[in-house]
Amino acid sequence: MLFFRNDYGQGCIPEILDLLNKTNYDSHPGYGLDKYCEQARTLIQANMPDTEVDIQFISGGTLTNLTIIKSILRPYEAVIACDSGHISTHETGSVEATGHKVIELPNSDGKLHASQIEKCFNDHMMTYEHMVYPKLVYISNSTEFGTVYTREELESLRAACDKLGLYLMMDGARLGAALESGVDYTLNDIAKWCDVFYIGGTKNGALMGEAVVFSNKDLAQNFRFVMKQDGAMMAKGWLLGLQFVGLFYDGAFFRVAKHENEMAQRIQAYAHNLGYPFLMKSSTNQIFLNLTLEQYDYLSKMVDFEIWNKQDDFLSVRLVTSWNTSEEDVKELCKCLYIAKELDK
Amino acid sequence: MLFFRNDYGQGCIPEILDLLNKTNYDSHPGYGLDKYCEQARTLIQANMPDTEVDIQFISGGTLTNLTIIKSILRPYEAVIACDSGHISTHETGSVEATGHKVIELPNSDGKLHASQIEKCFNDHMMTYEHMVYPKLVYISNSTEFGTVYTREELESLRAACDKLGLYLMMDGARLGAALESGVDYTLNDIAKWCDVFYIGGTKNGALMGEAVVFSNKDLAQNFRFVMKQDGAMMAKGWLLGLQFVGLFYDGAFFRVAKHENEMAQRIQAYAHNLGYPFLMKSSTNQIFLNLTLEQYDYLSKMVDFEIWNKQDDFLSVRLVTSWNTSEEDVKELCKCLYIAKELDK
Amino acid sequence: MLFFRNDYGQGCIPEILDLLNKTNYDSHPGYGLDKYCEQARTLIQANMPDTEVDIQFISGGTLTNLTIIKSILRPYEAVIACDSGHISTHETGSVEATGHKVIELPNSDGKLHASQIEKCFNDHMMTYEHMVYPKLVYISNSTEFGTVYTREELESLRAACDKLGLYLMMDGARLGAALESGVDYTLNDIAKWCDVFYIGGTKNGALMGEAVVFSNKDLAQNFRFVMKQDGAMMAKGWLLGLQFVGLFYDGAFFRVAKHENEMAQRIQAYAHNLGYPFLMKSSTNQIFLNLTLEQYDYLSKMVDFEIWNKQDDFLSVRLVTSWNTSEEDVKELCKCLYIAKELDK
Amino acid sequence: MLFFRNDYGQGCIPEILDLLNKTNYDSHPGYGLDKYCEQARTLIQANMPDTEVDIQFISGGTLTNLTIIKSILRPYEAVIACDSGHISTHETGSVEATGHKVIELPNSDGKLHASQIEKCFNDHMMTYEHMVYPKLVYISNSTEFGTVYTREELESLRAACDKLGLYLMMDGARLGAALESGVDYTLNDIAKWCDVFYIGGTKNGALMGEAVVFSNKDLAQNFRFVMKQDGAMMAKGWLLGLQFVGLFYDGAFFRVAKHENEMAQRIQAYAHNLGYPFLMKSSTNQIFLNLTLEQYDYLSKMVDFEIWNKQDDFLSVRLVTSWNTSEEDVKELCKCLYIAKELDK
Repeated sequence: MLFFRNDYGQGCIPEILDLLNKTNYDSHPGYGLDKYCEQARTLIQANMPDTEVDIQFISGGTLTNLTIIKSILRPYEAVIACDSGHISTHETGSVEATGHKVIELPNSDGKLHASQIEKCFNDHMMTYEHMVYPKLVYISNSTEFGTVYTREELESLRAACDKLGLYLMMDGARLGAALESGVDYTLNDIAKWCDVFYIGGTKNGALMGEAVVFSNKDLAQNFRFVMKQDGAMMAKGWLLGLQFVGLFYDGAFFRVAKHENEMAQRIQAYAHNLGYPFLMKSSTNQIFLNLTLEQYDYLSKMVDFEIWNKQDDFLSVRLVTSWNTSEEDVKELCKCLYIAKELDK
Repeated sequence: MLFFRNDYGQGCIPEILDLLNKTNYDSHPGYGLDKYCEQARTLIQANMPDTEVDIQFISGGTLTNLTIIKSILRPYEAVIACDSGHISTHETGSVEATGHKVIELPNSDGKLHASQIEKCFNDHMMTYEHMVYPKLVYISNSTEFGTVYTREELESLRAACDKLGLYLMMDGARLGAALESGVDYTLNDIAKWCDVFYIGGTKNGALMGEAVVFSNKDLAQNFRFVMKQDGAMMAKGWLLGLQFVGLFYDGAFFRVAKHENEMAQRIQAYAHNLGYPFLMKSSTNQIFLNLTLEQYDYLSKMVDFEIWNKQDDFLSVRLVTSWNTSEEDVKELCKCLYIAKELDK
Repeated sequence: MLFFRNDYGQGCIPEILDLLNKTNYDSHPGYGLDKYCEQARTLIQANMPDTEVDIQFISGGTLTNLTIIKSILRPYEAVIACDSGHISTHETGSVEATGHKVIELPNSDGKLHASQIEKCFNDHMMTYEHMVYPKLVYISNSTEFGTVYTREELESLRAACDKLGLYLMMDGARLGAALESGVDYTLNDIAKWCDVFYIGGTKNGALMGEAVVFSNKDLAQNFRFVMKQDGAMMAKGWLLGLQFVGLFYDGAFFRVAKHENEMAQRIQAYAHNLGYPFLMKSSTNQIFLNLTLEQYDYLSKMVDFEIWNKQDDFLSVRLVTSWNTSEEDVKELCKCLYIAKELDK
Repeated sequence: MLFFRNDYGQGCIPEILDLLNKTNYDSHPGYGLDKYCEQARTLIQANMPDTEVDIQFISGGTLTNLTIIKSILRPYEAVIACDSGHISTHETGSVEATGHKVIELPNSDGKLHASQIEKCFNDHMMTYEHMVYPKLVYISNSTEFGTVYTREELESLRAACDKLGLYLMMDGARLGAALESGVDYTLNDIAKWCDVFYIGGTKNGALMGEAVVFSNKDLAQNFRFVMKQDGAMMAKGWLLGLQFVGLFYDGAFFRVAKHENEMAQRIQAYAHNLGYPFLMKSSTNQIFLNLTLEQYDYLSKMVDFEIWNKQDDFLSVRLVTSWNTSEEDVKELCKCLYIAKELDK
């Protein structure tokens, strides 16, 4: 069966597997204090020369989000996110479990806009003390809908945060996909715009691991205590360092992301030409099609993918490419899409 | 200056003050284990003969809401509330601070409807485990907009909760006002519909105090441990018992609520006749008028009241009556409203 | 029955009751923003001229402790307290419920010494990150055993905190009793030594209420948000202001404490002369006697008091005086102690 | 340099590395819902035929402990542990961060005894409501000092828990070492005695991973929600399944543990014969020696190991063997110990 369910359904890129094999019998310090974590920090820092950053590695996205947010907010401070944000919808209330409200604003194609931030903040200031204090703006890039923030949008968000004294955090579970979608900004810009963000490994060819990058070093102070407290400091921490050495020592991180995007965009273009309607047009590695029930019945026998949501007479589904998606897989999928489309007639 | 700012801006009804004076030099057991708390429990239980309930007293509304919710939910369980609910807007994230998400659904005149509950629950079941589990439905009656649930609406909510295995909780900070607004149900019905609710004293003529009533006695188990942990178990707990003895031994609770409603309804009717527009029509003791800026300037010099929200060219304001609002106060306010209205012409 | 169970079993001193009666029908702003809270702040500040402080009022001790601690610590920071401290033993894990560990060190007559702090801190630094970071030292004065810190002890604690960068917090539920026990320091000194402390009203003649005093004003920043979030911001907040106006406008706070101490010390001296053994000698308003089972049987029929702990062949009991304990009560109690002592023979 | 620092400083046993290599390019369902997790569950269940259990996999020990405890306790319930327990000392207050107090009792050679549980429980019942409710007994086996509970001790703990209505939880980070230390019980017994325990992979030859085993299936209800909320549900969850397939399909788990113990016991016996004093005699893979400063200076140049604690004139150090410790390593270490011992003379 063709696998287009997600980008975290296969192991890791060969470069990382090779490193695991080569270092398996060596002895390493624990808890992320080893030389591979250090190398990975140096390699990542090299991508953001204009900002001196502080980097830590955590095994997965939910654990990363909750640990960052818990670490930097005071008890009455809240997060502003859009209602499609991962922390709003698919992390089982992990941020609230650390005691902080997530203020959910309506998304526009998965994105939050600067004007929303300012209105939200001002509304909260009206009844001061009786409402939470919005302090952190959380965005995902690429978003949960596969869309990508433009340079202008990010600059506006940063300006709004500066004006209001807020922190800007980017969930970069799929940051590679965003950066390789044709945007006119780089990790160096991200580091300047965000107070803290993470570079996702899990969905970008690693076995696991997210690299948390603090540009605002005040926020990084004693972050490792919170990591340990949250169970986010891995005993065999060098394993996370190895992932990011593998991803960054000669650019595999970007190659993987580019490959994922290209494979997905071929599918989207092909489906578009076939006349499929879309829930949303994506510029990265997640494609959101609308299928009739008949089309769904056929496709779901041939392809492993996820239903995004159900309407009365059609289904929105998500097709995702990964580091391991081959051109052959894409061709096979397109064939299936072609046949499914014919079913309508 | 006329005081129509809120219903918690003056001391307590004479019946309660008298009890405080009479018992001041007596010795009492602490922590709500005294005879006045016991009497108050008996007096309240008498109003709900069809349900054997468990009653505790807590000093204020926010502390009551957070203690109940923290006590009855498991860590991953969430509250469904409407976006105008007190816990959603004006308790500084106190529920989230106990670790639980408040799922905010759009309100209809301050109310939540049964159909919303079912849709919300089913949506959450689709991605199971990755989203919080909605377990408790929170409603306010009367609502934050002065509106009141009908018998039919409450029966539907109860039915939805039964069907889905949810708890129903009523924030009764202004439950007296609801019950005296002409509805065809009583405390006896409330006890049957809700798993837990509270009867507000603070906004109904007491110095302080809310009576938490558990109809679902399983939920009451060890509630006092959570009270103590949250600082919600008052050392001189008999003071709370005295409030509710004062309110319930000969019906002052209902008389106060009725009085508050009557005073407010006179104002609303008068303002309506003068042609004032309303943000919302209320059937209880909170009135929501829209004022021009000129009207506001005049009124705010004569009357102490709260701005509810600001639009570009007008203001919505709230006028609230209390146990201590006199007919004379109402007449004076009406005069001011008359003069303010003339300013338009 | 004679009442020596505790110091929070009767209403309030006449001065406060009088204020409640006089202001009952006036209208007041809510949430502690009224003129009585303001007057109370001014009156309290006058007792600590050398330090500009920030003062808030909260209804009870557990709520006060948890709100302060939650407000000032980061998630991985911990409290050092002695094992007899109120937060260690009798607040149902309220500090842990805010996410912070209480590191319990052995007490010496209810007290914590500076040398313990330093050792504890250094031990924690050895495994950094893997242990909590001790950041706040919590002491009670007078202690849970009725003992009182000396000036020298408090200066040493302050010096240790300065050296290690720790906050010093004093639980002053019975601070009046400490100050009137013959010590050579005043509120003015307390304000200099502590970062934050509270002046207890509940056990010193008020209906309720503790005045939280921040000498370290950085720690007071946005404290009111945390108060509201914890349900510690009373709607009818002026009631708390009235308590402290009553206690401080002409020194009732100190008179009450002095009276409590004197009544208790008479009992202790009398019992000492009778030959009763003591669990601990107190210099304030709590007396800890050891009774044989026979003595206990007799006394407990005549006097309402608390068993502190049980040994195989004797019981330690606590006798407490309050603002309302009369000389007559003390004489009656002494008679009972005399008779009980005779039972031995 | 010889590596005796810990048992989590090298990769994984060849069996697991092989599985990782073989399955790297396959597609898998996420979040622990894959066939390898299922196989691992079956293989583990086969070791405890008398109890039907529920098994989940989590990446590390701290995350496992906090997720279990958070999931099964109500807010006011507390954990009883000994003061040397891992959650008491080396998890940065992670249990308290979930809101629960850890009641620390003095350890006997790293162990908690049944009589302590009963006394602790009864003491807490005396002031009911004002103290936490001790509900869960946490033990580590093997302990943090390398000691192992006897069958009799575990049966007594279980009996005490049954009598008092408490849960028994075993931290099995080094459970393999305990089981292979010559005890007369097996996993089948552990499953009968404990309500919940975990089988440690990280310190027993896996790259990462702990298998949480619920014998008390009521406690397992909705555990996966809490896992997700705590970031403890790994996206590429099959990786954890693979670890335990590798450990359990032909007994590698036990072989590794046995090897670790044998290597360590050789060192302990040799050091004993040389006349080294011990902090504590261990029967598993952690050895606790006391060294003079001179001995330490020499050894620390040749061997990588951890200082356990410092006294004025000597140091207690810990030497740990791992799955990767060779007989050659042990011989080399013994040589160093011999030379160091000679330094004394």
